[in-house]
Order: sequence, then C-alpha cells, then structure tokens
Amino acid sequence: SMDGAPPPASPAGLSAFVAVSQLLGLTLLATTGAWLGRYRGGVAWHSPLQFNAHPLCMVLGMVFLQGDALLVYRVFRHEAKRSTKALHALLHGLALVIALVGIIAVFESHRAKGIPDMYSLHSWCGMAAFVLYLLQWLLGCGFFLFPGASFSLRGRYKPQHIFFGVALFVLSIACCLLGITEMLLFKISDSYSHFVPEGVLANTLGVMLVAFGLVVGYVVTREEWKRPLLAEELALSMDFKTLTEGDSPGGGS
Amino acid sequence: SMDGAPPPASPAGLSAFVAVSQLLGLTLLATTGAWLGRYRGGVAWHSPLQFNAHPLCMVLGMVFLQGDALLVYRVFRHEAKRSTKALHALLHGLALVIALVGIIAVFESHRAKGIPDMYSLHSWCGMAAFVLYLLQWLLGCGFFLFPGASFSLRGRYKPQHIFFGVALFVLSIACCLLGITEMLLFKISDSYSHFVPEGVLANTLGVMLVAFGLVVGYVVTREEWKRPLLAEELALSMDFKTLTEGDSPGGGS
Repeated sequence: SMDGAPPPASPAGLSAFVAVSQLLGLTLLATTGAWLGRYRGGVAWHSPLQFNAHPLCMVLGMVFLQGDALLVYRVFRHEAKRSTKALHALLHGLALVIALVGIIAVFESHRAKGIPDMYSLHSWCGMAAFVLYLLQWLLGCGFFLFPGASFSLRGRYKPQHIFFGVALFVLSIACCLLGITEMLLFKISDSYSHFVPEGVLANTLGVMLVAFGLVVGYVVTREEWKRPLLAEELALSMDFKTLTEGDSPGGGS
Repeated sequence: SMDGAPPPASPAGLSAFVAVSQLLGLTLLATTGAWLGRYRGGVAWHSPLQFNAHPLCMVLGMVFLQGDALLVYRVFRHEAKRSTKALHALLHGLALVIALVGIIAVFESHRAKGIPDMYSLHSWCGMAAFVLYLLQWLLGCGFFLFPGASFSLRGRYKPQHIFFGVALFVLSIACCLLGITEMLLFKISDSYSHFVPEGVLANTLGVMLVAFGLVVGYVVTREEWKRPLLAEELALSMDFKTLTEGDSPGGGS
C-alpha cells in the first residue's frame, strides 16, 4: 500500500537464497568436521593431527566467512552503509586470521614430517588466493574505510574491488576442491576408485562447496538484489554528480 | 569529432584485454600439448595414449572455445545481434562436440585399462559441468535462437543465462585444475614434491588456466564494455517498453 511508510522488506527470493546459503555453509563445516573426525583421527595442534586443522580453517575462513562477508550488503540492505561496511571488513579480517592459522598448520605439519612445501598446484593457487585476499582487504580498508580516498576515486575502484572479491572467493573454493583431491589421493589412493565411504563423503563436500559458491555468487551478482541507496546517500550522490558534471567539459585527468 | 559518422570503435582497454586473453588461450593449448608430447608420450586414438586426448580436448573445448564464445558479444560489438548470437551458439556447439570426444577418450581408456569410472571429485564436477553446459546450450538455443520465445520471456531468462554461462565456464576451469592435480599424483607422485620439470610445467598450466578465466571473466562482466544496443534494437526495445508499460498496472503474471 502507498499510505504510510512500510518497514523496508527484503525481496522474498533473496531471503530464501540467503537462508539456503547459510544452511549449505553450516553443512560444509559439519561435513568437513565429520570427514576429519570420523576418517582422519580428528584435529589437534602440536600433534600428528595438526595437518587436519588446515582443511577445517580453510573451509571456515576462506569459504564460509569470506562468502558471508560478500553477503553482508544484501542481508543488511537497509542499514547505514558505514556499519555494513565495517561488518564486511570485520568478517574478511576474521577470515584472514583463521586462514593464516590454517596455513601455519600445514607448514608446521610439513616440517614435522619432512615434507617439502609449495610444490603442488593446490599450494600455488592457495597461496596466491591468500596473498591476493590479504592485498584486497588492505586495499579495501584503504579506499573505503579510512577517510582519505575521494568520492570519485572510491567510485572508480569499487567495480574492481567487487570483481576481484568475487574472483578470489571462487578461486578459494577451487583451491578447496584441489585440497580434497590431493588429500584423497595421498590417503586412500588404493580404495578411492572403489567408492569407499570416505571418498564419497569428501566428493560430496566438494560438490557442496561448488553449490555454496553458486548460491553466494548468484545472490551477490543479481541486479535486482543490489543494495538500494538510502535517501541520504542518493542525495549525496546527486550533489556529487552535479558538482563533477559542472567541471567535466574542461577537466582532464 | 562530431561531424560525419566515425566508424564504431571498441574501447581501447577492451581490445588489449581480448588480445591478452587470446595469447593466454593459445599458450594454454601449446602448454597442454607440450606436457602431453614431452612427458606423456603424445596423443593417439585407439592406443594406450588415448587417455591423453582427454586433457587436450577439455582444455580446447571447455576452456578455450567456451571462453571465446563468451567474448563474442564484446568483440563483435557493432555487428547485427542475430549474427553474433549465431556465432556464440556455434562456438559453444563446437566446444560441446570437442568436449564429448574428450569424455569418450577417458571412458574408452578406462575400459581398456580396467579402471573404474566416475569415482573421483574431478569426474563428478566434470560430468556435472558438461551435462549442465549441454543443458545451458539447449536452453539458450530454445530461448534466443528459435523464434518461439516472446521478447519478455527472453528478457527474463537472459540474466540467468549469463550468470550460469559464467559459472559453468569457471567450473570448467576448476575441473581442469582438478584433472591436472589427479594426473600429476597418478603419474609422478614420487617426484612431484621435488619440483621436477613436469610438475612445474603442469602447475604453470594450472596458473595460466586461472589467468585465462580471470581475463575472460573481467571482460564479460565489466559494465562499460557491455555490447551497446544498435539504433534499431534501441527503437525496438523502446517500442516494447511503451507497449508493456501500457498494460502493466493491471497485468499480474
């Protein structure tokens, strides 16, 4: 109805997709835990089980938390931009810390077992994903969170930030698939081809990782579900447009 | 200059990115060929080398041709939509045929060697990617190439087609990375961790696949590089808008 101000509602489809993403995300974590707990002896630091902290941290940090950080602008679509932005940066920061723990786990476990580091495609892609993710986070804070960058500079960097954000999320999922494949071929290479339960469980985890990526990717790229500008943001943006269009015919750089 | 009708030009950045994508794509094919030729005995049908047709066909079909099919609307941005559309469908069709040959190669080679099919994460993701890609192609032809679908139905399906098109391209690349990892762990598991040339070459192929995906993904998703409507398309679309807006306040479904 047009009379009165109805409380802002999210599009119905969006809420359903976000709910599915969170169910999938929690199932991902549970499945990773079940795999490590049931077939790989569990997770412990400073022990031969230290390696197992790696898959758990990476799925939690580089997939679940990174994915949820992308969803923040769709879920909190009517909050002030500044708080949503802070939450976005915070979730990515938490993801980075947890991923770092996961990376330390694999390096320490390699050293304990005398296994060389960084020889596999998984390690190359994974390290690239982590370093670029850290860089993206630093650039994001620099451009959007600290007050230095101008309105126009932010506007020009924003599409790059979004593209590389989605790309790094996708690359992180691909790295998890590589890690699952490596781990299965290291641990159960003899029985994997006989469809043993551990292989089927880990494959299913891989398929769910792809599904999580698809759902999050769909939510964040769908045009109709983009965060609407608040009234005051719209006014600011229009003031800015008038301002810049006023000096654009002459101005060069 | 405003006088006369200048020939339509592509944005400079776009041309550079497309050129890089094609260089990367050809390098991908050459690197795959070099890996198979130099370290894996080459490629031949009806022979123990039949398996090697699999990676070559998948990189050519599911990555290079699929990627180029996505680029068609950016490269031929001032051609009639109908011809560009036909080329888009043709390249995807060719990609599907070549991928099918690659899939037959691996099934026949498994049968000859008594290796079970479809047990690995690579095979699950790869088969899903191929079947969904075929489905996407059939839906694309049905909605956009044959005259049956209405203008409004096409408009509603188009964003889905674009999202799933990019998603399937990305999934195809992820499947190639899984295939590279599997092949290295099957063939050189003892020496892979010592940074032998074959491992480094295949890892580099993986990194280049990611780079190809990034460049193609950037070109097809960048807002400013979207194909502009031709004058006659714009007129048609505006006629249509007037038509539908006329009956929209009443109409439901």
